[in-house]
Amino acid sequence: MSALLESYAAGRWFRADDEGQPLADAVTGAEVARLSSRGLDLRAMVEHARGTGGPAVRELTFHQRAALLKALAKHLSADKDALYELSYRTGATKRDSMVDIDGGFGTLFSYASKGARELPNDTVFLDGPTERLGRAGTFLGQHVYSSRPGVAVQVNAFNFPVWGMLEKLAPAFLAGLPTIVKPASQTAYLTEAVVRRVIESGILPEGSLQLLAGSPRGLLDELGEQDFVGFTGSAHTAGVLRNHPSVLHGGTRLGVEADSLNCSILGADVTPDDPEFDLFVTGVVTEMTVKAGQKCTAIRRVIVPEASAAAVLDALTARLAEVTVGNPAHEDVRMGALASLEQREEVRKAVEALRASADVVHGDPASVEVVDADPERGAFLAPILLRAHPGAVEPHDVEPFGPVSTLLTYGSTAEAIALAARGRGSLVGSLVTHDPGLARDITLGLAPWHGRVLVLDRTAAAESTGHGSPLPTLVHGGPGRAGGGEELGGTRGVLHLMQRTAIQGSPDMLTAITGRWTTGSRRRVDEVHPFRKSLAELRIGDAVESAPREVALADIDHFAEFTGDTFYAHTDPAAAARNPLFGGIVAHGYLVVSLAAGLFVDPDPGPVLANFGVDGLRFLTPVKAGDTIAVTLTVKQITPRTNADYGEVRWDAVVTNQDGDPVATYDVLTLVAKTWPREES
Amino acid sequence: MSALLESYAAGRWFRADDEGQPLADAVTGAEVARLSSRGLDLRAMVEHARGTGGPAVRELTFHQRAALLKALAKHLSADKDALYELSYRTGATKRDSMVDIDGGFGTLFSYASKGARELPNDTVFLDGPTERLGRAGTFLGQHVYSSRPGVAVQVNAFNFPVWGMLEKLAPAFLAGLPTIVKPASQTAYLTEAVVRRVIESGILPEGSLQLLAGSPRGLLDELGEQDFVGFTGSAHTAGVLRNHPSVLHGGTRLGVEADSLNCSILGADVTPDDPEFDLFVTGVVTEMTVKAGQKCTAIRRVIVPEASAAAVLDALTARLAEVTVGNPAHEDVRMGALASLEQREEVRKAVEALRASADVVHGDPASVEVVDADPERGAFLAPILLRAHPGAVEPHDVEPFGPVSTLLTYGSTAEAIALAARGRGSLVGSLVTHDPGLARDITLGLAPWHGRVLVLDRTAAAESTGHGSPLPTLVHGGPGRAGGGEELGGTRGVLHLMQRTAIQGSPDMLTAITGRWTTGSRRRVDEVHPFRKSLAELRIGDAVESAPREVALADIDHFAEFTGDTFYAHTDPAAAARNPLFGGIVAHGYLVVSLAAGLFVDPDPGPVLANFGVDGLRFLTPVKAGDTIAVTLTVKQITPRTNADYGEVRWDAVVTNQDGDPVATYDVLTLVAKTWPREES
Repeated sequence: MSALLESYAAGRWFRADDEGQPLADAVTGAEVARLSSRGLDLRAMVEHARGTGGPAVRELTFHQRAALLKALAKHLSADKDALYELSYRTGATKRDSMVDIDGGFGTLFSYASKGARELPNDTVFLDGPTERLGRAGTFLGQHVYSSRPGVAVQVNAFNFPVWGMLEKLAPAFLAGLPTIVKPASQTAYLTEAVVRRVIESGILPEGSLQLLAGSPRGLLDELGEQDFVGFTGSAHTAGVLRNHPSVLHGGTRLGVEADSLNCSILGADVTPDDPEFDLFVTGVVTEMTVKAGQKCTAIRRVIVPEASAAAVLDALTARLAEVTVGNPAHEDVRMGALASLEQREEVRKAVEALRASADVVHGDPASVEVVDADPERGAFLAPILLRAHPGAVEPHDVEPFGPVSTLLTYGSTAEAIALAARGRGSLVGSLVTHDPGLARDITLGLAPWHGRVLVLDRTAAAESTGHGSPLPTLVHGGPGRAGGGEELGGTRGVLHLMQRTAIQGSPDMLTAITGRWTTGSRRRVDEVHPFRKSLAELRIGDAVESAPREVALADIDHFAEFTGDTFYAHTDPAAAARNPLFGGIVAHGYLVVSLAAGLFVDPDPGPVLANFGVDGLRFLTPVKAGDTIAVTLTVKQITPRTNADYGEVRWDAVVTNQDGDPVATYDVLTLVAKTWPREES
Repeated sequence: MSALLESYAAGRWFRADDEGQPLADAVTGAEVARLSSRGLDLRAMVEHARGTGGPAVRELTFHQRAALLKALAKHLSADKDALYELSYRTGATKRDSMVDIDGGFGTLFSYASKGARELPNDTVFLDGPTERLGRAGTFLGQHVYSSRPGVAVQVNAFNFPVWGMLEKLAPAFLAGLPTIVKPASQTAYLTEAVVRRVIESGILPEGSLQLLAGSPRGLLDELGEQDFVGFTGSAHTAGVLRNHPSVLHGGTRLGVEADSLNCSILGADVTPDDPEFDLFVTGVVTEMTVKAGQKCTAIRRVIVPEASAAAVLDALTARLAEVTVGNPAHEDVRMGALASLEQREEVRKAVEALRASADVVHGDPASVEVVDADPERGAFLAPILLRAHPGAVEPHDVEPFGPVSTLLTYGSTAEAIALAARGRGSLVGSLVTHDPGLARDITLGLAPWHGRVLVLDRTAAAESTGHGSPLPTLVHGGPGRAGGGEELGGTRGVLHLMQRTAIQGSPDMLTAITGRWTTGSRRRVDEVHPFRKSLAELRIGDAVESAPREVALADIDHFAEFTGDTFYAHTDPAAAARNPLFGGIVAHGYLVVSLAAGLFVDPDPGPVLANFGVDGLRFLTPVKAGDTIAVTLTVKQITPRTNADYGEVRWDAVVTNQDGDPVATYDVLTLVAKTWPREES
C-alpha cells in the first residue's frame, strides 16, 4: 500500500487514522498515494489561521511579505527534479509540468516583484487621491485598503496542482491573509510535496499556509464575514458553494473561476499564405494538446470564416495526426494522459453529447495508439476535432475537459462576436488577425464577455505566451459561465482580497492614519534643512519653506534663448496677448520648476542621493514677468527599500506667487540614504 | 380613490387594469396613491432596455453621458416644490427631504463632474499602465473596462425614494447601462414623480430609464450574465436574492447594501469640556432623528468609555428631550413620522427584543406627544435610547429601523474595536477624538469591518457632512452583514458596473483597440510639425523627432548658477564622483526636460495653447557633460472637451542620449484648439 498523504494543520503534520482512498497514476493505473483527512479538526485549522498565521503576516509590511515570497520562490526553484518526477504520474509531459511547476514559481517571483515595486513599505494601501469634501479643506476623504482578519481558503482543481495553489497563495499572502489549501484529490500528492517543502523551509510564518489533504466537508461552516473562498472548478460545484449558508447569509466572500467554453477566432483578413494562418492552427493544436486539453483556458470553440473552413480543417487534421500520445516521460510523446480513467469517461460522454450537432472529423474517442504505455490502464485519449452543424447548440454549452475542440464558421464580424458570446462568459478569447481595424471591432465586441482577450499577429508572435496562459500581471477570470471571479492581475489580485474603506477626517487625522502627509496638515520647519536628514531622521511633514525669488522678463528671455524653447507665449508680447489663457508673456513652466529647485535644494553632499522623477505636475496660475515665486517642499511619503541602504522619499511641492496663489503643484521623487554619514557596509 | 401609479415601460406609461394596493400618508393615514403592475410585461421591459436603451447610451462617450447627467440635474433642480410637498407625506421633514431630493440631484451633479474630469472622452476606460509581457516589447498587455450589453435593475428601499434611485442611476448611466427602477411600495409615488419629470424632459435616451411601479415578481428570471441587480434593503431579502437561480447559476451580478448596526465611538481622550464631546452627542442625536432614524447608515450602537457613560447619557437624554415629534410640515417639528404604521410595529418589536439585554433610558415606545398631528393615524414614535447590560448580545444583532440607539461601554481601545466588530460588518463607523495616535489605532481596527469610517474632531467639524451621509465621491457599502456591496466612490462606482478585460497583443494592435498610443507602435513623422495641427487634424501617433543637442559642462554650470540649483552632483566634480549613482558631474533633470522642450517645441502661434502639466517623469540614465540628447514627442491621447473650443492632448516624450539609451520619459499635457485658425464663435 502506498503512503497516506498528510495534512499540515495547526502547526503539525496530521495523519488520518484510516487507510484512505487510493490515488491512481494517470499513466499506469498504479497506486501513487492514499488520501484521507478523517479526524482532522477543521475548526482548529481555521482558528490557527486566524489566531497565529494572520497576525504574523499582517505584522509584516507589503515589502517584507514580498521579500519572503521571493525567498520562497528561490528556495523552491533550486531543486525541481523530484517534483517533475511526481508530475509525470499526473499524466503531464515535461512541457505540461513546466507550465504547472515553473509557472507556479514564476508567479511567486512576479508577485514578489510587484509587491516591492507597486505596493508601499507599509501595511495599508492608499487608493486614489485625497477627496476634498468641503471648500476650506478641513474635511477630506481618503480610500484605503486594509487587511482582513480572516482566512483565505483555496478549493483547487486537479489540473494544476502546483500553479493552482501558488497563484492563489501569492496574492493572499501579500494581502495579509493566511491560506488553507484544499487540493483536488486526483493530484493532491504533488500539492502535498510542494507544501512540505514550503513548511520545511521555514520561510513563511507559521500558520500562514495549511494543507487540507482530504475532504473539505464542514470547512465552509467555520467561515465568516472576513473570510474568502477561492474556488477553481466546475460551474456545478460553484453553484453548490454559492448556496452555502456562510456565503448566502454569513458574509463569506466567494471567488469563482469555472471552466468555460473559450473560443479562438480567425480574422476574415487571414489567408493560408499569411503567417497568421499558421499561428492560428498552431494555437488551436497547442491548446488541444497541452495538459491533454485539461485547462480551463483551452480553446473549445474554433471560430473561422466560412471561406476558410476547409483550409483550416485540412491544416488542423494534418497537425493533429502528428501528435503522439503516450507515456509523458517518453521523449517522443507530445501528449500524455488525462488525470484519471474517470476523467476520460467524462470527456467521452461530452463528445457523445457534442455529436448531437457536430461531426467528429479527427480522432477516435474510443481508441488511441500510445507510445510506451498500456492504453487500457492509462487514461489516454486521442485529440478529437469536431465540426459543428449550422445552428449547433451543444458546442456552446457542453464542455469536454480534455483534448477536444469544435470548429464553427461565421459569415460576418457581427456573427463571429455573437457566436463568441454564446459561450455566456469565458475566461479567455483569442483573435488572430493582422488588420488593426478588425482587431478593434472584434476585441471590443468580445471584451464584455471575457476576462482576457489575446490578439495574435506576426509581430506579437515572437513573444506571445499564447491563448491558454494566464499571466500573473493580467487578470484571470471571466463573467457569467466562467464564474464572475477575478484573480491575479498584479496588485489587482491583492487588493481584491483586502477591504476598501473610505476614511473621512481632518488633514492631520488623515496624515496620522494613512502615514502619508495630506495637504492641509501640519508641517514641521526647523533649523535643519530636510535634505540634511537621513531616512532614519526624516519624518512625514518635515518641510522647507523657501525664500521668494522674482521672475524677471530678462529671466524668461534668457531661458528661452538658452533652452531654445522660444514658444511665442514666452517671447512674443503681441502674440502672447492674443493667447486666450495667458493674455501676455508668461514664464515657461519648466523655468518655474527649475527655479523652484534652486530655491528648495540644499547643495552640499548629504543623504539625498538623487532626484529620480516628478509626478503629477500641474501649472495652475501663469507666472508673468515681475511675479515673485516661492516654494514649499514637504516630506509626503517615506519608503525604505528592503535590501538597499537607501529608500524613496516623495515630497509635496507647492510653488506660489506673491499673492499666495498656487502656481504649480507636483511630487518630487528622491532617493535618500538610510543613514548619514553613510555607514561602512 | 387616489390615482393609480403608472410604470414607464418599453417607451410608454403603463397603467394596471386593477385598482391596486393603497399607499398611506405616513402622517395622516390618508390614501396618497395606489400601486399595481398587474399585466405589465417585464420581459418586454428587459428587452427594451437591452435593445433600445443600452445601445443608445453606449453610442455616447463618457463625456457625452456626463453632459446629459448634468443637464438632467439642472432640469430637476429647477423646480422642487411639488416634490417637497409629496415628500412630507412620506413622514419626512424639510431637512429630511433635502437629504433625499437635493442629495439625489447633487449626486447627479457630482457624477457629471467626475465623468467629465476623470473618464476619457471615449467609450472604453484604460485601467493601469501597459504591461510588458516580453523583453523585446512586441507583446504587451493592457487592462480595459468596457460596457456590458445588459441592464441594471434597482431594487430600492423606501427611505430615500429620490436619492436611492439617482445614486444608482448616475453611475449606471455613465457605465453605459440602461436602468429599470423598482421602488419600494410605501414611497413609490415620490419616485414615480421624479421618473415622470426625467421622462418628460427627454434628456436621457429612450430606454435608458424605466420604472416598475409594482411587483418585481419574475423580473430576475429575465436576467442573465451581463445584467446587474443593485439591491438596498434588509439582509433577509438580500439572502433571498442571492438564492435566485439567475444569481446562483445564471451569472447575474448582485450588489447588496443591507441595513447594518453602525456604531459611533467616543475616544477615551475626550472629556465633557472638549468640543469633541458635544460633537459626539450632537452626532448621535442627529442620526437618531434624521429620517426618524430610518437610515441604513444611522448610529445603532453608541460606544463610549466606561468613565464617560454617565456624562454621555445625561447629555443625550437632555438633548433628546428637546426633540419635537409631529407633522413634518410644521415648522416646530424636528422629527416626522416613520414611513408606515407597519414600520412602527417593526421598530417596537425590535425595541422589545433589545430589552432582553438593555434598559430603555429615554423615550416610551408605546406613546409619544405629537405636534399638529394625530398620534394614532400617523406613524409617530418617540426617540428611544437604551443602555446595554454588560455582555449584551442583542444590540449587536437586532436592528431597530427607527429612532433607536443603544449605549454600550468599553474599557480599552482593543475592546472598543472588538465591540464595533461584533456588528459583523457595517456601512459606516465613526470615531470622535482629538488624539491622532488613538485615531490611527481605532480607525485601522475598524477599517476591515467598514465601508466608511468618519473621524470627527474640532477641525473637521466645520465642514463635516456627518456620520450618516454617504457621499458620491466616497464608496458606500460594507462587508458582512452590510451586504458586501460597494456603490458610489466616484468612478469606482462606474467601473464596478463595467467588465474588466486584459487585452494582449502587439503595440500597434493595442493602439488600434484602445485608441491610445502605445509605446512601440508606429509613429507618423511628416513635414507638418504636430504643434501646427488642430485637434481636428491631429492623429494618435503623430510625432516629432528632434535634432540632437550636446549638453556641455558649461550648460550645466550655467544652469546651476542661473536657477540657483547648485546641488553638488551638478557643480562639485569630486563630491559628484563619490555619489554612488552618478560617479561624476551630471546634468540637472530639470535642465534635460527644459532643453528637450527647446528641441520639440514649434514656437509660432498655433493651435497648441498651453502646456498645463507633466505626468510620470522618470530620469532613467544620468546625462553627463558632453552627452548629446534628442527627444521624440508623440501624440498619445486626444480628449476633446465637450462645451469648449479646445481639448487636451497627452504627448509621450522620450529623451535619449547618443547611445540611444532612454534618459527621461514623461507625458506632456497640452491644451489644443479644436480648429486653427480659430473659428469666430
